[in-house]
Amino acid sequence: MSDLRVAVLGVGLMGADHVKRIEGRISGARVAVVNDYLTDKADALAATIPGCRSVADPLDAIADPEVDAVLLATPGPTHEKQLLACLDHRKPVLCEKPLTTDPQSSLEVVRREAELGKRLIQVGFMRRFDDEYVALKAMLDEGELGRALVLHCVHRNPAVPHGFDSSNVVRDSLVHEVDVTRFLFDEEVSSVQIVRPTPNSAAPEGLSDPQIAILRTASGRHVDVELFVTTGVAYEVRTEVVGEHGSAMIGLDVGLVRKGAPGVWGGTITPGFRERFGRAYDNEIQRWVDAVRTGLAAGEAATDFTDGPGAWDGYAATVVCEAGVVSLGTGEPVEVTLVDRDSIPGA
Amino acid sequence: MSDLRVAVLGVGLMGADHVKRIEGRISGARVAVVNDYLTDKADALAATIPGCRSVADPLDAIADPEVDAVLLATPGPTHEKQLLACLDHRKPVLCEKPLTTDPQSSLEVVRREAELGKRLIQVGFMRRFDDEYVALKAMLDEGELGRALVLHCVHRNPAVPHGFDSSNVVRDSLVHEVDVTRFLFDEEVSSVQIVRPTPNSAAPEGLSDPQIAILRTASGRHVDVELFVTTGVAYEVRTEVVGEHGSAMIGLDVGLVRKGAPGVWGGTITPGFRERFGRAYDNEIQRWVDAVRTGLAAGEAATDFTDGPGAWDGYAATVVCEAGVVSLGTGEPVEVTLVDRDSIPGA
Amino acid sequence: MSDLRVAVLGVGLMGADHVKRIEGRISGARVAVVNDYLTDKADALAATIPGCRSVADPLDAIADPEVDAVLLATPGPTHEKQLLACLDHRKPVLCEKPLTTDPQSSLEVVRREAELGKRLIQVGFMRRFDDEYVALKAMLDEGELGRALVLHCVHRNPAVPHGFDSSNVVRDSLVHEVDVTRFLFDEEVSSVQIVRPTPNSAAPEGLSDPQIAILRTASGRHVDVELFVTTGVAYEVRTEVVGEHGSAMIGLDVGLVRKGAPGVWGGTITPGFRERFGRAYDNEIQRWVDAVRTGLAAGEAATDFTDGPGAWDGYAATVVCEAGVVSLGTGEPVEVTLVDRDSIPGA
Amino acid sequence: MSDLRVAVLGVGLMGADHVKRIEGRISGARVAVVNDYLTDKADALAATIPGCRSVADPLDAIADPEVDAVLLATPGPTHEKQLLACLDHRKPVLCEKPLTTDPQSSLEVVRREAELGKRLIQVGFMRRFDDEYVALKAMLDEGELGRALVLHCVHRNPAVPHGFDSSNVVRDSLVHEVDVTRFLFDEEVSSVQIVRPTPNSAAPEGLSDPQIAILRTASGRHVDVELFVTTGVAYEVRTEVVGEHGSAMIGLDVGLVRKGAPGVWGGTITPGFRERFGRAYDNEIQRWVDAVRTGLAAGEAATDFTDGPGAWDGYAATVVCEAGVVSLGTGEPVEVTLVDRDSIPGA
Repeated sequence: MSDLRVAVLGVGLMGADHVKRIEGRISGARVAVVNDYLTDKADALAATIPGCRSVADPLDAIADPEVDAVLLATPGPTHEKQLLACLDHRKPVLCEKPLTTDPQSSLEVVRREAELGKRLIQVGFMRRFDDEYVALKAMLDEGELGRALVLHCVHRNPAVPHGFDSSNVVRDSLVHEVDVTRFLFDEEVSSVQIVRPTPNSAAPEGLSDPQIAILRTASGRHVDVELFVTTGVAYEVRTEVVGEHGSAMIGLDVGLVRKGAPGVWGGTITPGFRERFGRAYDNEIQRWVDAVRTGLAAGEAATDFTDGPGAWDGYAATVVCEAGVVSLGTGEPVEVTLVDRDSIPGA
Repeated sequence: MSDLRVAVLGVGLMGADHVKRIEGRISGARVAVVNDYLTDKADALAATIPGCRSVADPLDAIADPEVDAVLLATPGPTHEKQLLACLDHRKPVLCEKPLTTDPQSSLEVVRREAELGKRLIQVGFMRRFDDEYVALKAMLDEGELGRALVLHCVHRNPAVPHGFDSSNVVRDSLVHEVDVTRFLFDEEVSSVQIVRPTPNSAAPEGLSDPQIAILRTASGRHVDVELFVTTGVAYEVRTEVVGEHGSAMIGLDVGLVRKGAPGVWGGTITPGFRERFGRAYDNEIQRWVDAVRTGLAAGEAATDFTDGPGAWDGYAATVVCEAGVVSLGTGEPVEVTLVDRDSIPGA
Repeated sequence: MSDLRVAVLGVGLMGADHVKRIEGRISGARVAVVNDYLTDKADALAATIPGCRSVADPLDAIADPEVDAVLLATPGPTHEKQLLACLDHRKPVLCEKPLTTDPQSSLEVVRREAELGKRLIQVGFMRRFDDEYVALKAMLDEGELGRALVLHCVHRNPAVPHGFDSSNVVRDSLVHEVDVTRFLFDEEVSSVQIVRPTPNSAAPEGLSDPQIAILRTASGRHVDVELFVTTGVAYEVRTEVVGEHGSAMIGLDVGLVRKGAPGVWGGTITPGFRERFGRAYDNEIQRWVDAVRTGLAAGEAATDFTDGPGAWDGYAATVVCEAGVVSLGTGEPVEVTLVDRDSIPGA
Repeated sequence: MSDLRVAVLGVGLMGADHVKRIEGRISGARVAVVNDYLTDKADALAATIPGCRSVADPLDAIADPEVDAVLLATPGPTHEKQLLACLDHRKPVLCEKPLTTDPQSSLEVVRREAELGKRLIQVGFMRRFDDEYVALKAMLDEGELGRALVLHCVHRNPAVPHGFDSSNVVRDSLVHEVDVTRFLFDEEVSSVQIVRPTPNSAAPEGLSDPQIAILRTASGRHVDVELFVTTGVAYEVRTEVVGEHGSAMIGLDVGLVRKGAPGVWGGTITPGFRERFGRAYDNEIQRWVDAVRTGLAAGEAATDFTDGPGAWDGYAATVVCEAGVVSLGTGEPVEVTLVDRDSIPGA
């Protein structure tokens, strides 16, 4: 089969990374189209890739008959429109989180995809493709830890971009742990509370940092997440599940261990999410490309063009994070209410 | 100087351990008197120790002119009376936690000691004498982590004695983390909340397990504690401080590492608190013996017969834990109110 | 540019793995031809890959004008002939170790490639592409450890195939540490000694196991290697460099850590070389494909079609291992003598 | 029973440490006499200890009827005479290593003690009292690793005193691993070889550093030891046993783990042998004091006043180290020949 022709919409940090990934490390796909609201940037990038065009309007790119699938790395507020266009054109799409920026539009996307009877949308929660999370999930599924009761998470960034505010911590950082919770526990989050302890004096104005998120799941399990995005240290993600028959932790991050400076031993922590989760992104994109090609090869009958979290997962994460933003203001637990999934056949 | 003559009151598990410790591993002290409400037990133990008598009434033991100092390992409800007797007789006393079982009597003990103008009471929070906690405290005091903002604690027991109920988790387990918080952060706890997630199906009736305690300190720092006392695994105590300039963790518990069973590497976790903190107890008792001997050698002028947490620390822990027991019922945060320490000169 | 058309010669365990890798995870290449002395096996495999043919004679496959590059996973004794054919046809080739099975033929291959003035041969020492070895090499090159003095290696397999004998330990296992030594220290090995301690009672007849290899490099550095291939535990590869300013170790192999069975903590060791070095193979093949494509794109002028160890590295490893086999018989150190590299311009 | 009256001979670094230990941390013993060839030093020290005298002549101290037992921390060359005096006066003695400085005098001590029919001499190999070595030995004795085949040791010092030369590495550092080998494997060493790799440029003249020692035991097991005493890093002692059913390692030295400097995690290594083995010394001395008191309490009938390695262990270590010094000159393996232990009844 010939290579999948992918349109990458949005070629900022994340999108440019994906272009490089597809061109350099992914089997069976090539970047056929790039698009960005900064057209010069997209034009320049296209010029470096054999057989790649720059298309000015993202909706044109989606509609393009020479495009088999879409990778959405545009800003969140544009997602709804672009996702609906993908659905209209029956184009499989891998959408970087968030699905959309508010619960209502996310739900609309879920409904529209469900009406089609085809799973075309995959959401980019890449941790589900990380070897350690996969091993942890397998350990849970095999029952080695018994029923899981508690989840402890740590999410630390050395620094954040200018303008990153308190709500970004919830929407852009916590969102990953929300998905990790749903992935590991196979159930929905029922309430979320954001606690704000003594702030880091190095945090800029407008940014409450650290924050502690306390989630409760539908069946009553407890999740706590330390979110600390101005540590100055490194990118640290640690997850511990406590079950009835034992506990398990990932993210201890031991590789090369050195004894050098007098009296000290130690190692290096991955500096950023691309180093920590680079391989997870590779796995994610490769498996998505494989799933889309399998789907396309199956022709009209095909109903699934995904291999990972779908639109519902994106919707659920958005609802939890928006409840988190409410709690950020009050400090109180906020209940999370999802529509009844069974009321949307196919979701 | 001749050996310190210690009366050990209460020779159950803990007290018998201390008798063995003083006789076998502590320099400058000997067990002169033992006492237990089970007099046969005390008699039998005394018979095995050269120069040791069994005394039937704890108050007689305290008053005994051949007793220089008292080690209190009796049940909590008897502490108030015995501590006050120690104060009356000016006998230095090391009191196993709790100081007393309710805030009011604890406060009374604090006041009475303060009136004497002598520090005679030390409370047995042994973690302050553990090498790892000492190193963590030193790291904080030297400013290596910057200002501490968050504390994550895990406290797991493989099993608990028959009759151990939900409030014991707060009073007997959480109490250690309350003292660790006060020790590491040098400030009081201002509120406490107990969250009860999905319970462990192996926990007996009457025991909510696990529990999550969420503390807030006077200056607004956040502390979370997982308390899980029926894990079936081992005795695990882990503490992580997150500061403005980095984080530090103790309790990872690596010693002998083995690769044996096919495909598996690992080590052994200390099975119980005596293995984990045995050396801390040795340090605690040796330093207490040294402090008492130094005090006694100084004669009338001496005002301090302790080298560790005192009556106020015991009072503060009791108040926090009782607030915790209230929260256990409601699930809501409960404010902690201590009397103004400055209102009690000498406390 | 169109995909590189690769002929994979030998589709046993290793070759079949590479076919799967190129088809499923490598960008810019496809398997155009497969070959095996078991022709049915090759035919069956070819049938599952779109656009792939089975060719009965490996020399025909090499000569095939529709083949751009060759991946050699055939048995060692056939390598010489096949490599020389690749040189004759100017076909870039990635040759699984060993280069050839004896020093003389290895040297002949080195000479013939040097005469061409083009680097067409890359040898499959995949550890050079493993993240941890790469980090260790970088640390050495940046001078962080000062001058390296000593190297400790451990190489353990849970089991070996039927027929694996004492000399296989040297030729098939030690060979990797020989290359690691040369890679990390950038110099040749000057002597090798094999010590045979008390044997493992589970080792089959004909297999001395464990063996201890002691290497000395040209400048006098010391290397010791524990080779133990019937441990029954797991695939364990550990390497420690000791330098003038510190030491560094890789292979501690911590990922998911679990506390489950009473009193025990631990994790899983990678069961085999494919799990441990799977990603290194991916990196190796991707970088080789990229280098070959870059070379081919450059046309006649191109002189390098490799990105990794070359024919000389294969030759040097073969000479050291054959000296090791001699030492296996005597237990004494055996000097290693390489031809003067400068006497072969271009080698 | 009254406290054991100990004479500490030699109050340099090691002896002074033991004085402090006995006075401050050991139950059932006190320092009754101190002695040093620097009499002022001994006098000054005695003045600080209640009930302690300084005695100018070590032989007088040994003969003193107010001395129950002797702790020998004098320089090695004086040991023979002092040990024989202890035997003459039937004084239990704990002798810091070496037993004596040459095989012949060590053997003489073994013979003389054997003639008495009483075990009076214990040799100060403190690692046998370290928790981790004890756990490793227990694991071996319980058969968890199967038959042990190979032992890997690392012994690193940050620095050594002025005048420490190549033979000191063998006699003062390797001697510990010689005893560890004999302790863990319960058999004698049959040959020893010292390899000298590229030297550390920071090592002073006269000091070959690092050195690699290769031991072979009577039954053919292999032991390798890296000895590196000018690392500038820390005091590092690591031991790994490889057995037929698995391997086990001690000395990984994880305690407080910190993430602070950008991108780095790590901990602290014990700076010196007193920090690393301080607790082992405590255990050693306490158990020796207990054994001697038990022996003395038993009266004339008592035949054992030790609880640890004896004169034979000191003799065997001396013989192996002297063979090591020979190998230091030649680089070749040197056979180790002990007298037949059965030829000395009681040894």
